[in-house]
Amino acid sequence: MEKINIGNNAHVYPMPVSLVGSLIEGRPNFMAVAWLSRVNYMPPIIAVALNQRHHTPKGIQENQAFSVNFPGADLMEKVDYCGLVSGRETDKSGIFQIFYGDLKTAPMIQECPLCLECKLLQVVPLPTNNLFLGEIMGAYTEEIYLTDGKPDIQKMNPFVLTMPDNNYWRIGEWAAKAWSVGRKLKEKK
Amino acid sequence: MEKINIGNNAHVYPMPVSLVGSLIEGRPNFMAVAWLSRVNYMPPIIAVALNQRHHTPKGIQENQAFSVNFPGADLMEKVDYCGLVSGRETDKSGIFQIFYGDLKTAPMIQECPLCLECKLLQVVPLPTNNLFLGEIMGAYTEEIYLTDGKPDIQKMNPFVLTMPDNNYWRIGEWAAKAWSVGRKLKEKK
Repeated sequence: MEKINIGNNAHVYPMPVSLVGSLIEGRPNFMAVAWLSRVNYMPPIIAVALNQRHHTPKGIQENQAFSVNFPGADLMEKVDYCGLVSGRETDKSGIFQIFYGDLKTAPMIQECPLCLECKLLQVVPLPTNNLFLGEIMGAYTEEIYLTDGKPDIQKMNPFVLTMPDNNYWRIGEWAAKAWSVGRKLKEKK
Repeated sequence: MEKINIGNNAHVYPMPVSLVGSLIEGRPNFMAVAWLSRVNYMPPIIAVALNQRHHTPKGIQENQAFSVNFPGADLMEKVDYCGLVSGRETDKSGIFQIFYGDLKTAPMIQECPLCLECKLLQVVPLPTNNLFLGEIMGAYTEEIYLTDGKPDIQKMNPFVLTMPDNNYWRIGEWAAKAWSVGRKLKEKK
């Protein structure tokens, strides 16, 4: 089949859905963010890309801290709501039960199966967005989401986003072991 | 339920699976990468985090260009193979059919439903990894992967990765419209 060029505004397939938490003038705020990635192995660093017009960057700069919370599909409506309204006009602090870790200034969400507490390391300024790099200081979960001590995606039940069609999708079936299923091909070569 | 801290080496749930393409000393090379994200709206910029010991950074620096290819689940074995062997010792150029876009130095994969051609803008040095920021110059796909002119994840059939359990997962069912399903909650408040 022939390849066609559909232009430059293309996305990652699919994007993880998270809620980035920050404390802004003493009020916990949560923003829906799908532009994020782990970026460093040791120390563990995560990057979140936020539009410069958002309210959340203010709180991250203020406290040099933020959280990244991975919601289950049961929280889809609330997550989407956090993407529809700005903390500038709306108090989103009452939507979730909030807890804090060692940093004390990175609000995390009790209802989320996995919450990362991050200390701001660096801000990379970009044309319309800023990239916030945070060192992961701790990861909070519950026994019910673990298998062999590791978070189990089937128990966490997160969801993903596609753009520009703007749809949420569930995680499907287990497919294969990574760093393993390609071994046969390696032996063949 | 009580939250427990499982330590700082935590990951994003789930991670998109891509193959990053580069031309190293004239030879096309592909590396399996799950640490990536869109990071800027306009111009469209994508970030990929690569361990400094990898072979791919050499090619990206050499040509100031790279590609990000999203494979379908049918390519799982080949993708995993690309994550198991280094281009330093192994010629991976024959695994896929290769094509080029306008940049001429960012090899892309014919078998992948979506390929992004990127011009290197900036490298952010991190302790063990480097973060390569590339402007997306074009996105190559085929008519069979589109619905209403947009890439359709159900036609692309990509897969995702979880770490540290190291598993690949398929994409599941459609769940809801983004920037929409939370509107009822917005009206209620």
